[in-house]
Amino acid sequence: MLDFSCDYRNGACKEVLDALIKTNSETTATYGFDFYSKRAGEKIKAACKAPDAEVFFIAGGTQTNMTVISLCLRSYEGVISAQTGHINCHEAGAVEHAGYKVLSLPHSEGKINSAELDAYMRDFNENPSRDHMVFPAMVYISYPTEYGTIYSKAELLAIRKVCDEYKLSLFLDGARLGYGLTCDECDIDLPFIAEICDVFYIGGTKVGALCGEAVVFPKKAPAHFITMIKQRGAMLAKSRVLGVQFDALFTDNVYFKIAKNGADRAKELKKAFADKGYKFFINSPTNQQFIILDDKKLKELQAKVGFEIWERADETHTAVRFATSWSTTKEEIEELKKLI
Amino acid sequence: MLDFSCDYRNGACKEVLDALIKTNSETTATYGFDFYSKRAGEKIKAACKAPDAEVFFIAGGTQTNMTVISLCLRSYEGVISAQTGHINCHEAGAVEHAGYKVLSLPHSEGKINSAELDAYMRDFNENPSRDHMVFPAMVYISYPTEYGTIYSKAELLAIRKVCDEYKLSLFLDGARLGYGLTCDECDIDLPFIAEICDVFYIGGTKVGALCGEAVVFPKKAPAHFITMIKQRGAMLAKSRVLGVQFDALFTDNVYFKIAKNGADRAKELKKAFADKGYKFFINSPTNQQFIILDDKKLKELQAKVGFEIWERADETHTAVRFATSWSTTKEEIEELKKLI
Amino acid sequence: MLDFSCDYRNGACKEVLDALIKTNSETTATYGFDFYSKRAGEKIKAACKAPDAEVFFIAGGTQTNMTVISLCLRSYEGVISAQTGHINCHEAGAVEHAGYKVLSLPHSEGKINSAELDAYMRDFNENPSRDHMVFPAMVYISYPTEYGTIYSKAELLAIRKVCDEYKLSLFLDGARLGYGLTCDECDIDLPFIAEICDVFYIGGTKVGALCGEAVVFPKKAPAHFITMIKQRGAMLAKSRVLGVQFDALFTDNVYFKIAKNGADRAKELKKAFADKGYKFFINSPTNQQFIILDDKKLKELQAKVGFEIWERADETHTAVRFATSWSTTKEEIEELKKLI
Amino acid sequence: MLDFSCDYRNGACKEVLDALIKTNSETTATYGFDFYSKRAGEKIKAACKAPDAEVFFIAGGTQTNMTVISLCLRSYEGVISAQTGHINCHEAGAVEHAGYKVLSLPHSEGKINSAELDAYMRDFNENPSRDHMVFPAMVYISYPTEYGTIYSKAELLAIRKVCDEYKLSLFLDGARLGYGLTCDECDIDLPFIAEICDVFYIGGTKVGALCGEAVVFPKKAPAHFITMIKQRGAMLAKSRVLGVQFDALFTDNVYFKIAKNGADRAKELKKAFADKGYKFFINSPTNQQFIILDDKKLKELQAKVGFEIWERADETHTAVRFATSWSTTKEEIEELKKLI
Repeated sequence: MLDFSCDYRNGACKEVLDALIKTNSETTATYGFDFYSKRAGEKIKAACKAPDAEVFFIAGGTQTNMTVISLCLRSYEGVISAQTGHINCHEAGAVEHAGYKVLSLPHSEGKINSAELDAYMRDFNENPSRDHMVFPAMVYISYPTEYGTIYSKAELLAIRKVCDEYKLSLFLDGARLGYGLTCDECDIDLPFIAEICDVFYIGGTKVGALCGEAVVFPKKAPAHFITMIKQRGAMLAKSRVLGVQFDALFTDNVYFKIAKNGADRAKELKKAFADKGYKFFINSPTNQQFIILDDKKLKELQAKVGFEIWERADETHTAVRFATSWSTTKEEIEELKKLI
Repeated sequence: MLDFSCDYRNGACKEVLDALIKTNSETTATYGFDFYSKRAGEKIKAACKAPDAEVFFIAGGTQTNMTVISLCLRSYEGVISAQTGHINCHEAGAVEHAGYKVLSLPHSEGKINSAELDAYMRDFNENPSRDHMVFPAMVYISYPTEYGTIYSKAELLAIRKVCDEYKLSLFLDGARLGYGLTCDECDIDLPFIAEICDVFYIGGTKVGALCGEAVVFPKKAPAHFITMIKQRGAMLAKSRVLGVQFDALFTDNVYFKIAKNGADRAKELKKAFADKGYKFFINSPTNQQFIILDDKKLKELQAKVGFEIWERADETHTAVRFATSWSTTKEEIEELKKLI
Repeated sequence: MLDFSCDYRNGACKEVLDALIKTNSETTATYGFDFYSKRAGEKIKAACKAPDAEVFFIAGGTQTNMTVISLCLRSYEGVISAQTGHINCHEAGAVEHAGYKVLSLPHSEGKINSAELDAYMRDFNENPSRDHMVFPAMVYISYPTEYGTIYSKAELLAIRKVCDEYKLSLFLDGARLGYGLTCDECDIDLPFIAEICDVFYIGGTKVGALCGEAVVFPKKAPAHFITMIKQRGAMLAKSRVLGVQFDALFTDNVYFKIAKNGADRAKELKKAFADKGYKFFINSPTNQQFIILDDKKLKELQAKVGFEIWERADETHTAVRFATSWSTTKEEIEELKKLI
Repeated sequence: MLDFSCDYRNGACKEVLDALIKTNSETTATYGFDFYSKRAGEKIKAACKAPDAEVFFIAGGTQTNMTVISLCLRSYEGVISAQTGHINCHEAGAVEHAGYKVLSLPHSEGKINSAELDAYMRDFNENPSRDHMVFPAMVYISYPTEYGTIYSKAELLAIRKVCDEYKLSLFLDGARLGYGLTCDECDIDLPFIAEICDVFYIGGTKVGALCGEAVVFPKKAPAHFITMIKQRGAMLAKSRVLGVQFDALFTDNVYFKIAKNGADRAKELKKAFADKGYKFFINSPTNQQFIILDDKKLKELQAKVGFEIWERADETHTAVRFATSWSTTKEEIEELKKLI
C-alpha cells in the first residue's frame, strides 16, 4: 500500500547502505574516535564553512535535543520554544525530565516571532520577581518546523539579533533540515545556519540514514561533551555506525540531493491536491503537507493510502499530514493522484 | 513606615511565639517523631475531620510543592496548573528541576476552569501521539489563587468530577489557605478540602508561623514519604520547631482567628480604596488586593507606604498589590486611608 | 594490524548485514511497532521460553542500564552493584545522573557474593537509621562480568534467594551475554536467566549487531515503558533498525553460533598465552582474556597488535586485555601466536 | 529522663530565643534581603576574616549539602567523600537524587587521608577510560566527622595541597563546627577554614539555633545562587527567621561560647566513662562520645538514660553514642556518673 504517513518508514538511501556494506569488515576505533566519524565531521565542517566547528553524532532526535539542551544550560536556566515545538509537545517531557523548563511562546504556523521573543525577554528583565523565575537562556527553533514551514533569512537574522541583545544561545533542531534547505522557498544555506546558531543538528534519521543526527557546535562545544553524552546514554560504542552513514551523506552532496527529492515530490503532491480543489490546513513548502479532508473522503482514502491524522479541523473535516521523503518516487505521486 | 507589601514580613503570632518560648527547654524526639509534631498532626486531622489522614511538616512553600508533586508522580507523568500558578511562574522551575513538566492551562483570574480541564483531558486521550507526550496525572490549584481569588464549592466539585473521570489526583496549594477560608465569599471549609483533595497543604509561613507548611494526605501518603522528604532536603532535624508552631496554630482555633483578621482588614482596605474611587485590577475577596494607580499617585504613595508593583495596566497606570495579614491592625488601615 | 583491543570494532555479522540489505526498501511502522521488532520480540520470547515476556530494543548499553534502572526504581530506592560493575565505574555516572545511588558491594573477580549480599541486606534492615538511607531495591549483575568471569548456576540461585527474601529485583546486564552462555564453563542458558531475573538484556553491539540491546522483562514491564524510554531518549524512531538486526540474530540460532566463535577463539588465545608461560591476571573463561606482560614485552607487542592496557600489575608488569569476538578468525589467533 | 541521644533535641539557646522574641513584631524584607540576614552575614564575614565572602542561610543540613554540591558541580563531575561521610550514608541519596555521584574513599576514624586522595586522583588522571568516568571535582569533608574526630591543621593543609594540584574544590560540612573548633585538640580556627575552603557551612541546628545553617563562600558564590536555592526549595520566604538567629549567634561570640559548653561537657563525660574503666569505640575529642557497653549494661542503662546505638562491637558488646550539646549541664553529667 502507498504510504505517506511519515518520513522514517524506509531503510537507508543507497549511498549510505553501500557505505555500511563496504566498510563492514573493517576494524575501527570506538566512541567517536573512529576514522569515519572523524572524516564525516570534517566533511560537515567543510559543508558548513565552519573550520572551528565541533561535530558529534547521536543516534536519535529526542536524545539529541535533550542532551544538547541539558548540556548547554545551567540549572537555573530554561529554553524558549514555540508552544508547538517538538521538545514542548512530543518528546514525553524529556527536557523537563533532565531538569529544565521549556518556556513556551505563542507560535505562528509553528514559528516564533522575533518581536514576541523580544517582548518576552524585555518583560522578564523588567520583572521584579525574576530571581524567582527560570532564566531564559536558549532559544529552540526547528527548521523546518513541526508544521513544515520554514523561517526566512530575515526572520532568522531578527531572532539572532534578539539573542545577541539578551545573551541567549540559539539552537536549531534540524531533524528535517535537508527538506527545508532544498525547498523552493528557502533563502538560506548550511553555512548561514552555522553562522547564526550556537548549536544545531543535521537530521539523518529522516533524511537517508538508518539512524543518527549530527550535532554541530560552529564555534566550540561545552567542555567534556564526550563524557556528558556518555552519561546521558547518547553515545554509541560502535560509533562508526553513525560516522560511516554521515560520511556517505556528506560525500558528493548526497544529503542535499536526496533531500531535494523529498522536497520536489512534496511540491508535486501539493499541486495534485490543489488541482483537485482540496484546501490546506497550512501552507507548507517542505516535505510535510497538511490537507483538509471531509470525513467521508478521509475514510475512503484511509483504506488505500497511509497518512497521518493531524487534528480535527471542524465538525465534518479533518486535517491530515502527507509526508514525502528521500525515498518517495514520482510513481508513488502518480498513483496517489489517481486516488484523490 | 506602613507596609502592605506582603504577608510574610513579620515574625510569629503571639500564640506561636509563646509556644516556642514555653517548650524551648524541653527535650524531644527528632525527624518528625517528636511529641509536638504528632500532636499537631492529630489536631489537624481533627480539624479536617479526616481521621485516616497523614500529616507532615515542611519548612517552606516551594519545597512543599516540589516535594509533593515529585513524590506523587511517576516519571512519565506531569502536573496541570493554571498558567499563573505559583509552580509555573515563581518557583524558579523547581518542579521541572525535579524532572516533571508543568502542563499549563489558561486561567481566569488565577483559576482554572473544569470545562477547560475536561477538554484538555479529552484531547489528550484522543491524541494518537499521546505515548510521546507527558501524561497529565495531577491537577494543581491554589486556594486562594495568586490573584487572591477563590474557587466556589461548585467550581471545586466540578474540578473533582473531572479528576475522577480521568484519574487525576488533586493537589491544593494552601500557602494562604487561612485567608481564603475566612473571607466573606468562602463557601467551603477544611473538611471539604480534605474530602475532595488527594493532598493539600495548610500554609503557616504566611499565616502566623515563623515558617512551616502542613502537608495533609487525607487518605494515605505515598510509601516511605519520610525517606523521600529527607532526600529532597525537606525534613528539619529539629522537627519540633514546626510541630510546636502548628500545635499552637491548631489549638483553640488560632489559625482561623488570626487568618480572619487578615481577611477582615483586607475588606476594610478594599472599601477604603473603593470609597476613594480607585479601580481594581482584580476583584479579590481575600488578603491580597490589586489596585490600579496612575503613575503619579504610584510615585507619591511609594514614598509613604510599602506595597508591591504587580504589572503595567496601561500607558499611564500600574496595577499594584496591597497585602494584609494576621498582623495587620485596624490602626494601619486607618493610617493608610489618610494617605490614599 | 591484528586487533584484539575490544569486541565492538567491526561492523555486523553476515546474517545481520544481509537482513538490513534485504529489508532496506520495505516500508514499516515506527517507534517499536514495526513488523521486525515485533517478530524479533517473539523469537526472543521463544528463545527465553518466556511467553509472557515483554521485549524492547534500545540502541546502546549505558542507555539500557540507565533506562532500566531508573524506570524500575522509586526515588527512595537504589541499586546494588559490585564495586567493579560497569554502572559503577564506566558509565560516567549515568545512573546517578538519573537520580539513583549505586550501592557498591566488594567484588571477587567482578562478581558479588550471595552471602555478602545477604549480610548487607540484614545490616540495612537492622540499621536504626535506615529511613535516612537509600533503600536497596535492585541487584545489578553482569554476565559475563567486566573481568570476563561468569556466575555458576548455584551462585545465581543463591543470589536469587537473597533477592526473594528481601524483595529485591534482579537485573542482569548481558552486554556480552552470548560469550558467557557459549563458553565451556557455562552451566546455565537463556531460559534459566529469564526464570531468575526480573529484567535483563541481551547485548547486540558486542555480539554481531551494528548496535542494539534487547531488554527482556520475563514477566511484565513497568507501565508506560514506551513513554519512559522515549523520555530518556532511548527510543529509535526508525525502530526497524534494531528489530531487523535482532530478528536476524535470533533466526537459526545465529546469536549463539557467532558468540561461540568468540568464546572458542578466546580459548585458543588463552591456551596460546599459557603455552608460552604467560601469567594471567584473572582466570576468565569468556572472550575477554587478561594477561600479565612485563613492560618490555608490552612495548614490543604494542607495535604489532592491538590490545587494551588494563592496570598496573606490579613495578615491572602490566595487566592487559585481549578480546576476541564473533568476528575473530582462527587465522588471527595463529598470527598472534607468532608474535607472543 | 537524662538524654544524651543527640545534639538537636532542645530548642534554641537563650540569646537566640531572646532575639526572636525581641524582633518578632518588626517588619522586614524577605528572601534573604532582610536586615538581620545581611547583618548576620557581615558578622560571619568578620568572624571568618573574609571580607569578600558571600553568606547564605539554609534551613537544614541535608538541604545545604545537596544544594551546595549540586550548584558547584557540572553534570559530568562528582564529589569525593569518606565512605562514612554523611552525604554518602545518611542523607537518603540526596546528592545522587540531584544527579551527582558520591565517589567514596576509605576512611580512618571518619577522616580521609591526603595521600589516599592524591593516589585516587593520580589513578584517575592516568586511567585511559577516564572520559567514561565521573570526574572528581570536589572534596567533601566534615569537621568534626561523623565519628566526632577532627582533622589537624597539617592534615587539612595536606588535603588542600592535593585539591590545588588537581583543581578540586574543598567543601567542609560544619554541621557541628562549633564543637570541633572549641575542643582541646583543635589547632585551627574559623579564618583558617575560610582560607582553605572554597565553601563550608557553619551549623546552627546542632549549635544553639532552632534551625539553620550558614553557607559561606569565602571568595565568591556561583552566579544566581539565590535563584538556584529557590529552585531547590532551600530558601525560606521569611528569611529573617534564620538571619535573626545567626545574628544572635555571632554577637559577642555566643556561637563559640555555647559550643564550648558542649565540648567541655563531653570531656567530663568521657572522663567519667574512662574513670570507670569503659572502653571507647573511637577516641573522639568533641561532643560525640562512642563507648563500648556489654549487652547487660546496655539494657540497664537504656532504662535510665537516652543514648544512641551505634553498631555491634562484638558478640557481647555494642558501641553506643552519647552526645552532649550547648544545652548539656554539669548537673546532667553528675547525674550520669551515678548511673554508669
